[in-house]
Amino acid sequence: MSIEQKAIEARVADGFKRANFIVDLGIEATACGAGWVEAEMPILPRHLQQGGFVHAGVQSTLADHTAGAAAATLLDEGFSLLTIEFKVNLLRPALCDTLQCRAEVLKPGKQVCVVESEVFAINNGEKRLFSKTMVTLAVLPVAATLPR
Amino acid sequence: MSIEQKAIEARVADGFKRANFIVDLGIEATACGAGWVEAEMPILPRHLQQGGFVHAGVQSTLADHTAGAAAATLLDEGFSLLTIEFKVNLLRPALCDTLQCRAEVLKPGKQVCVVESEVFAINNGEKRLFSKTMVTLAVLPVAATLPR
Amino acid sequence: MSIEQKAIEARVADGFKRANFIVDLGIEATACGAGWVEAEMPILPRHLQQGGFVHAGVQSTLADHTAGAAAATLLDEGFSLLTIEFKVNLLRPALCDTLQCRAEVLKPGKQVCVVESEVFAINNGEKRLFSKTMVTLAVLPVAATLPR
Amino acid sequence: MSIEQKAIEARVADGFKRANFIVDLGIEATACGAGWVEAEMPILPRHLQQGGFVHAGVQSTLADHTAGAAAATLLDEGFSLLTIEFKVNLLRPALCDTLQCRAEVLKPGKQVCVVESEVFAINNGEKRLFSKTMVTLAVLPVAATLPR
Repeated sequence: MSIEQKAIEARVADGFKRANFIVDLGIEATACGAGWVEAEMPILPRHLQQGGFVHAGVQSTLADHTAGAAAATLLDEGFSLLTIEFKVNLLRPALCDTLQCRAEVLKPGKQVCVVESEVFAINNGEKRLFSKTMVTLAVLPVAATLPR
Repeated sequence: MSIEQKAIEARVADGFKRANFIVDLGIEATACGAGWVEAEMPILPRHLQQGGFVHAGVQSTLADHTAGAAAATLLDEGFSLLTIEFKVNLLRPALCDTLQCRAEVLKPGKQVCVVESEVFAINNGEKRLFSKTMVTLAVLPVAATLPR
Repeated sequence: MSIEQKAIEARVADGFKRANFIVDLGIEATACGAGWVEAEMPILPRHLQQGGFVHAGVQSTLADHTAGAAAATLLDEGFSLLTIEFKVNLLRPALCDTLQCRAEVLKPGKQVCVVESEVFAINNGEKRLFSKTMVTLAVLPVAATLPR
Repeated sequence: MSIEQKAIEARVADGFKRANFIVDLGIEATACGAGWVEAEMPILPRHLQQGGFVHAGVQSTLADHTAGAAAATLLDEGFSLLTIEFKVNLLRPALCDTLQCRAEVLKPGKQVCVVESEVFAINNGEKRLFSKTMVTLAVLPVAATLPR
């Protein structure tokens, strides 16, 4: 494994473990490279909405956080990211044991970064796409992304 | 209190209590009427992202669920809702003890409903807006919103 | 060419020619199939914004209309479409002689349809992506999509 | 009229007159102040889609451009704006003689600016809202917003 790939993996792992809400939901990174990250989470009863489907907020959290991690793989030292906005299309109600996500950077940038996230489950070897999200992130000096 | 207002309150309360993820996050409805709902949640360490701010996924969950509840106040018997899509603009990093949300129906409909949600905190009597979300929901017969 | 392909082409051509604003901008369909449409337009000085780039509104029109056409290729007789919402990410300022668009249906549906559109130019044989749009359309009986 | 108000009006007028596509559509600014702009356009047959309603692309152009102008009223000298993304909810099909728009800055910023635009018509003294748009703009040195 290249030094760069090791650095990417360390950065991604760090970005998941230090985020309380991500740990609380059980979301973990499973693979990554320059410009992309994959993550997954086990779906438990506490993740559901009133109808018994995975809550849109769970899908959005997974999509947004994985997108931020994908953008972070391309970031210069000393910089960090904050999500400016995202838009999620929920294509069908989500029902599964494990929710997966793949985020890919569509447009890196020095000021703004755009990432696409797909949230899906694999069922009998087939990919079932539940939602697709476009995320815009601001690139900022690390200090600007921490509480004062 | 009118019979209609009682029915609205019962429906809204039900929509929050039966959603596991909402209960898990600690989100509760605080006020409602025809076409609008207010909700709030205490912010705990487990709701934060890596920088120490409230995670965008927490804000989105609050915004989306409260929007759905607002739309539900205008729904005919026998119908339910599923979020089709939403878009959230995160205006500034969120730091607070209690996160509040007010959702108002912008356009009710027999097939599609559009709702605006604002997520904010009150600090020293002043409203600090953290995010604004536009939510589109599909109106469906109840059976179509439940797992088969 | 199959009868179905002929019917798709006729429907798509019709959807571009009967839309005044599309004819006015010079947008034409160039290829199509079940679930996708490609279109293009020549960029003239009148399509630019104050900086000299293609106006975002031009890109949005091209993306939205081509998306509607892609959704229409999958529509049952007697039904038509109205755009409910779309979100466009403008990835870089657009400068070109000919703007192209490819729209693909991400999720067909009896009530709601979701389509992705990419707007780009081909420069020296290379694709330059200017914007990506997610479009949600309502499927309605034809009469509901015409002025009363 | 204050010097500041005069400067705002001059800047807004300039931003509409120098944009070819805006002149071509017939869009004109009608009022403005610090953080907001109003604009309108006459609806002609060439602005319609296939069903006879105002094309979504026309509404989007009006919403996006007026939003940019609203953000520009708060800009420091030497800076300009580019739209990063916008999302429009089309609430009902638009049918009218004159389309109006009011854009208000929701969150100004040194790097990113968020603006809301409402597109509507006044009919018999009553406001009919056709669409609502959230626009995110990047604040950039003027040179970065011009073709190289």
